[in-house]
Amino acid sequence: MLVVMKAQATPEQIRAVCEYIEHLGFRAHPLPGAQRTAIGITGNKGEVDRGNLEELSGVAEVIRVSKPYKLASRDVKEEDTVVRFAGTDAAIGGRNLAIVAGPCSIESREQAFAIAEQVAAAGAQFFRGGAYKPRTSPYAFQGLGIEALRIMAEIRDRFGMRIVTEAIDSESLELVAEWADVIQIGARNMQNFSLLKKAGRLRKPVLLKRGLSATLEEFLMSAEYVMSEGNYEVILCERGVRTFADHARNTLDLSIIPAVQRLSHLPILVDPSHGTGRRDSVLPMARAAVAAGADGIIVEVHHQPEKALSDGPQSIHPAQFASMLNELEQIAPVVGRTLPRGIHVNAVVG
Amino acid sequence: MLVVMKAQATPEQIRAVCEYIEHLGFRAHPLPGAQRTAIGITGNKGEVDRGNLEELSGVAEVIRVSKPYKLASRDVKEEDTVVRFAGTDAAIGGRNLAIVAGPCSIESREQAFAIAEQVAAAGAQFFRGGAYKPRTSPYAFQGLGIEALRIMAEIRDRFGMRIVTEAIDSESLELVAEWADVIQIGARNMQNFSLLKKAGRLRKPVLLKRGLSATLEEFLMSAEYVMSEGNYEVILCERGVRTFADHARNTLDLSIIPAVQRLSHLPILVDPSHGTGRRDSVLPMARAAVAAGADGIIVEVHHQPEKALSDGPQSIHPAQFASMLNELEQIAPVVGRTLPRGIHVNAVVG
Amino acid sequence: MLVVMKAQATPEQIRAVCEYIEHLGFRAHPLPGAQRTAIGITGNKGEVDRGNLEELSGVAEVIRVSKPYKLASRDVKEEDTVVRFAGTDAAIGGRNLAIVAGPCSIESREQAFAIAEQVAAAGAQFFRGGAYKPRTSPYAFQGLGIEALRIMAEIRDRFGMRIVTEAIDSESLELVAEWADVIQIGARNMQNFSLLKKAGRLRKPVLLKRGLSATLEEFLMSAEYVMSEGNYEVILCERGVRTFADHARNTLDLSIIPAVQRLSHLPILVDPSHGTGRRDSVLPMARAAVAAGADGIIVEVHHQPEKALSDGPQSIHPAQFASMLNELEQIAPVVGRTLPRGIHVNAVVG
Amino acid sequence: MLVVMKAQATPEQIRAVCEYIEHLGFRAHPLPGAQRTAIGITGNKGEVDRGNLEELSGVAEVIRVSKPYKLASRDVKEEDTVVRFAGTDAAIGGRNLAIVAGPCSIESREQAFAIAEQVAAAGAQFFRGGAYKPRTSPYAFQGLGIEALRIMAEIRDRFGMRIVTEAIDSESLELVAEWADVIQIGARNMQNFSLLKKAGRLRKPVLLKRGLSATLEEFLMSAEYVMSEGNYEVILCERGVRTFADHARNTLDLSIIPAVQRLSHLPILVDPSHGTGRRDSVLPMARAAVAAGADGIIVEVHHQPEKALSDGPQSIHPAQFASMLNELEQIAPVVGRTLPRGIHVNAVVG
Repeated sequence: MLVVMKAQATPEQIRAVCEYIEHLGFRAHPLPGAQRTAIGITGNKGEVDRGNLEELSGVAEVIRVSKPYKLASRDVKEEDTVVRFAGTDAAIGGRNLAIVAGPCSIESREQAFAIAEQVAAAGAQFFRGGAYKPRTSPYAFQGLGIEALRIMAEIRDRFGMRIVTEAIDSESLELVAEWADVIQIGARNMQNFSLLKKAGRLRKPVLLKRGLSATLEEFLMSAEYVMSEGNYEVILCERGVRTFADHARNTLDLSIIPAVQRLSHLPILVDPSHGTGRRDSVLPMARAAVAAGADGIIVEVHHQPEKALSDGPQSIHPAQFASMLNELEQIAPVVGRTLPRGIHVNAVVG
Repeated sequence: MLVVMKAQATPEQIRAVCEYIEHLGFRAHPLPGAQRTAIGITGNKGEVDRGNLEELSGVAEVIRVSKPYKLASRDVKEEDTVVRFAGTDAAIGGRNLAIVAGPCSIESREQAFAIAEQVAAAGAQFFRGGAYKPRTSPYAFQGLGIEALRIMAEIRDRFGMRIVTEAIDSESLELVAEWADVIQIGARNMQNFSLLKKAGRLRKPVLLKRGLSATLEEFLMSAEYVMSEGNYEVILCERGVRTFADHARNTLDLSIIPAVQRLSHLPILVDPSHGTGRRDSVLPMARAAVAAGADGIIVEVHHQPEKALSDGPQSIHPAQFASMLNELEQIAPVVGRTLPRGIHVNAVVG
Repeated sequence: MLVVMKAQATPEQIRAVCEYIEHLGFRAHPLPGAQRTAIGITGNKGEVDRGNLEELSGVAEVIRVSKPYKLASRDVKEEDTVVRFAGTDAAIGGRNLAIVAGPCSIESREQAFAIAEQVAAAGAQFFRGGAYKPRTSPYAFQGLGIEALRIMAEIRDRFGMRIVTEAIDSESLELVAEWADVIQIGARNMQNFSLLKKAGRLRKPVLLKRGLSATLEEFLMSAEYVMSEGNYEVILCERGVRTFADHARNTLDLSIIPAVQRLSHLPILVDPSHGTGRRDSVLPMARAAVAAGADGIIVEVHHQPEKALSDGPQSIHPAQFASMLNELEQIAPVVGRTLPRGIHVNAVVG
Repeated sequence: MLVVMKAQATPEQIRAVCEYIEHLGFRAHPLPGAQRTAIGITGNKGEVDRGNLEELSGVAEVIRVSKPYKLASRDVKEEDTVVRFAGTDAAIGGRNLAIVAGPCSIESREQAFAIAEQVAAAGAQFFRGGAYKPRTSPYAFQGLGIEALRIMAEIRDRFGMRIVTEAIDSESLELVAEWADVIQIGARNMQNFSLLKKAGRLRKPVLLKRGLSATLEEFLMSAEYVMSEGNYEVILCERGVRTFADHARNTLDLSIIPAVQRLSHLPILVDPSHGTGRRDSVLPMARAAVAAGADGIIVEVHHQPEKALSDGPQSIHPAQFASMLNELEQIAPVVGRTLPRGIHVNAVVG
C-alpha cells in the first residue's frame, strides 16, 4: 500500500500520516520525490483500511500496489536512486558511470597496495577486495578477515577510493559496516533473508548481487528485504546466471538492465569478471554492459593474476583496466553518461 | 588426502596417526569402516607431505583424493551412512525408508496437533514443520519461531515422532539444535557457508537441501562444509531445480539419486512437494523417488490446505498421505527396502 | 473451436456438421468418445461464427477452446488415446505397459538379430533401431538407411515385434512409413514443423520426442501439428531436457507425466537411456518412470555396448533388460498397470 | 585432419594433395589463407594415414584437429571469413557492421514496400522478411510463401538491399536459394541436419541461428554440416537461449561473441528482437551487441507493429531504427568498426 501526498503537503502532515500508520502497527517509509512525497506502508499484519488514510489531511490518494515489491518499485519512487558518498563526489547511479575495481581477495598489504595504486591512477573511484570469501570448498583460502579490512581502510586514506567488500554473516557484517563504505552481499547469499534484514538495519549502502538462478522479481524482493528495514541505499549487480551454456563460467544476462530500469529506481552495476570467468571476455562484456545502460562496472584486477589465490583466470591486468576505461569513456556519451576519472575528496568530511 | 589404515591396525595406532596430523596443523577425521579405518585429512594450509605419513605404523596407504570433497565421498567411506536416533528404532539411510511429514509452517498448536495425529496414525516416523520460514517476501508470514519449536517438542513427546525443522541463521540454529532432532538447512542457504560451518560444530543430524541451481559437486561440497567441522551426520535432500520448464514449480531431478549413491555414502531424501508445487503431482513423484532408490520422502501434509499460511497448493491431505504410504510400501521391496509404520520409542532414553 | 454433439446424434448428423465446417473453409476432425462425439475445428482463416453451428441438428454445444492446442487436449477428448497395432495384441496407452527396446543404431544384420532375439525373449513387444541417425557431427556414423529398414522388417517377421524407427526428413519419412510400424520424430526435429505436417498426412503412429528445451505447451503444439493433418495416433516421449546439471547427459523430467495426463489424452513413454546417458542410471529411472505413471519405456539395449557405433555408454546389456522387466512388472500393479510379456500376433493380418 | 601447405606451395601441388585425399575416399577442402593454404580433410571413413600425406611435395605439416569441428575452426583458417555480395559493396564480417532489417513476416506488397523504403532510407544494406514461417501453432499465419519471395525480389531491384529470408524444408530451400541472397536457417532447425546438408550443397550464404539450447560446440558443428558439403559462407547468429529468466522472451547470450571469435573464423550477427521479445529492450541490446564485438545486427522493424501478423511486440518503429543506427555508428569506432549507410550497387552485375 502506498500513500501519495499532495504536492503542497506540509512536513507536519507527512509526519502525522506516518505516525498514524505506525500507530496501526505497520511501518511507514516516507519517500520524498521531486514533486511530492509518497509513503510506503509495509508490515506483516494484513491489510490497512485505506478509507481512514484517505481522509487524513494532505493525502492525495492511496494506491494498492500489485507488485510484491513496493519500496524497490518505480511505482513508488519515480526518480532514479543515486547513492552518494559523503565528503566526495563519488556516486552510484545518475549521470556518472561508477567503476569499482580491485582484486578478488586481499592477499597481503603489498598485493593490495600494488593493485590499488594502479587502479586509482587509471581512474577508479571505488576499490573492491575480498576479506571474507564464500568459497565452494571448505579447504580453499577463506580470506584474511579483519586484517584485510584494515588494509582497505588504509587504501581509502591513501588513494581516496571508497571501499566495497563482502559480508557473509552477522559477524562479518558488523565489521564490514564499520570499516568499509559499501556492504556487498554475494550471489550465494541473495536469499539469506536473515542477513538481508540485518543489513537493512545498518546505514551503509548495500551492493546486492543477483543469485545464480534468481528471477528479476526475486532479485527485487531481496532488495525489498533490505529496504523494508529502512535502508534504502541498495545497488543491484548482475553477475551472470546459471544456464546450460559452457563457453563461459556463467551467462551474463544484460537484458536485465532495461528490465530493472523499467520496474525499479535502483541503480544496477554489472560484474563482467564473474559473469564470464575469462579474462579475454571481460572487456567485451564491460563495453556491452555500459552500452546496454548499466550504471557502472565492478571488475577484478590483479597485477599478477597467475599468482592470485582466487579467481586469477578472470582477473584483468592493470593495463587492460586502463584500456577498458578508455573504451567505456567513448561509449558513455551514447547512453547519456560520462566517465569520471578519479575521486575528489572534500577536505572536511571523513 | 586420505590415510587408509591396515585392517589389523590398533586403536592406538589410529590415534597416533591422528595426533601426528593435528600436530602438523591439519584436522584428522577418523572414519571407521567395516573392514578398516580411513583417516581423512582436511585443512587450509596446503599439502601434507605424504612421505612421513606412509612411514607411521599401521598405515596401509596414503591416497591423494582428486574429488574436491573428501569426507562426503564414497572413496573415503564405502559403507552407506545411516543416521540413527537414540532411544528409537527410527533411522535415515539403510534398509528402511524414512518418511518425514507435516505442514509447511506451524501455524498454531491446534493445526500442528491435528496434522501430527493423522500422519502419526498413518505411520510417519518424522514430523516436519516450519518455525522459521525463509520467505521470498519480507511481508509474508515468517513463522512462529520459538513458539513453534515448543509445539513440536510437545508433538514429539505425545506421538514419538522425531522432529525436523529449518534453521535460517545463527540464532535460530542454536534454538533448533536445542529443541529439534534434525536441523534442516534450506535450498536458499545451501551455500551459506557460515551457517554450514556452525551446523558442523553441533552434534545433531543436518538435513541439507539442494540449492535451486546447485550441481552435484556443489551439493556434496556443502555437505563437506558441515562434515569438515566434525559433524558427519548429513542427510541430502533433492527438492527440484530451476529450469525453463513451467508445468511444475521446479524440475525434480531424480537422476541425482543414482549419481549420489555412486559418489557418496550419505543418504538422500526427496521432497516431492517443493519439487513439483502441485498437489496432484506429489504422489506420482513420491512413488518415482522411491522407485529410483531414494532413502525416503519428506512431504507437506495439511488437514486444511486451502487455509494454509504457506504452500497450501502443494500440501496433500492426510488421506492422500495414507494412500501414498500404501503405494510406497508396495514399491519398497523392488528396491530392497521396507516401509516401517510408526516409530518405536525405547522407554529409557529421551 | 469444438463442436460437441448430443449423445444420441446420428452418424448422418455428424457427417453433416463436418461437411458444413469444411464448406466454410475449415477442417473438421470428428473425435468419437465413449458417450458422444466431438468435432474439432482447425484452420488458418480466423474465427468460425458459432451461431450457425449451434443451430445444426444434433449439436449439443459449441466450445471456444482456450488452450492453443485443441486436438491434443483432454478437453476435446476425455478418454485416453490407445494406439493399437492391427493383427496383434500390442498397444501403447491403456492398461498395458509398452516396452520398446533395441540398439541405438542398426549396425549389421548380425548385431540387430542378436539383440532382437534377446529382447524378444525377455518380453519386448516393440523393437527400436536407428536407420537414419541425426548426429551432431557430420563426420559421425549416419546410419545404414534403407538397409537397416530391411533388416528390421525381417526382425518383425521373425520375432513378431513391431518396429519403431526415426525419420529425419521427407525422404526417410516415406521409407520409414513404408517399412516400419511407428515413425519416430526425434528431439532435434520436434519443431521441424514441415516434417510434422508430412507425418500428419500419413496413417502410421508417430512417436514424438520432446525437444531439449521444449515446454509442455510447445510439446503438445508439436503433437497438434501432426494431428491437425488428420493423424491422431501420436505417442509422446520424455527423453530429458537440457539444464545446468552435469551429473547426467540430460535432466529427465518425470513430472511432465502427471502434467501430460492432466492436459492431454495422448500416451507418454519415457526414454531413460537418452534421459540419463549412463548405463547405471537407466534401471533406476525406468522404475521411476513407471512409478510416476508413464505408459511405457523406450530403452537402448546392446549385446556389446563397448563396440556400439553410437550411444554405447548408455546402452544396457540384455541381462539388465531382463532384470528391468522383472522390476517393472512388480511396480506396474501399484499404478494400475500390467506388463505383458511378448507379443501375440494374429495369424491373418500382416 | 588438416594438411598445412608450405607458403611457397604451387597451385599444382595443392591440387595434387587434394586429389590424393579424394582418391583415398575422403573430401578435401582447400582453404586459401593470406600466407599459405591449408587443406581440411573430412569424411565418414575413419582416420587418414598421416604418414603418406606428409611425404607429398609442398606439404608443411599434417595436424590432427582435436575439436570436432574442423572447417569452422580458426585453427584451420586464421583469417576472419567475410561474406561478400557480388556487384555490391555489401559484406558480412570484416570492418563494416552489417545491418539487416525488415518485418518478421511479409504480409503484403504494401506493407513490405512501406517498411523497405524506410529502412533503406535509414541505411540498411540487407532486408529481411519471412516468407515461410515456422510457427509454434499449426493454426497461426504460416507466411505468404513464393508470393513473399517475389515481393522481396522486387524490393531488391528497387532499393538495392540484399535479401535474407528463412527456408524451413527442402521445398522452400530451393525457392529461397533461387530468389534470395542469404538463406536463413532458423533456431528450431539448427539441428535439422538433413536441411543443413542440403543448404551446404547450394552456393548461397547461409545465416545459421543458434538453437534455443545449443552449446557453442553444437552451434559450430551445425555450421560444420553446411561447410562439410562445400558451402563455406556461413554466418552465425545469436538470438537468445532458453533459461529460467522471465523478464525477457529469451536470454541473449552476448558472451558467445568473444568465444566464437576465439574459436572460429565465421562472422556472427546478433538478433536483439528475438533475443528479448520486447521493443523497449531492442535498442539497448543492439548497442550491447556491437560493443561486445558482433559483426552486425538483424532486427525486426514494422511500420505498424500493433497490426503485425507475427512478432509485433518486439518489432521496432522505423524512427527507432534510425536512432539505433545513429547510436551504433558512435559505438562502432570503439571496436574498430564503421557503420556503412546504404548499399552501393555496381551497374554491371545483378
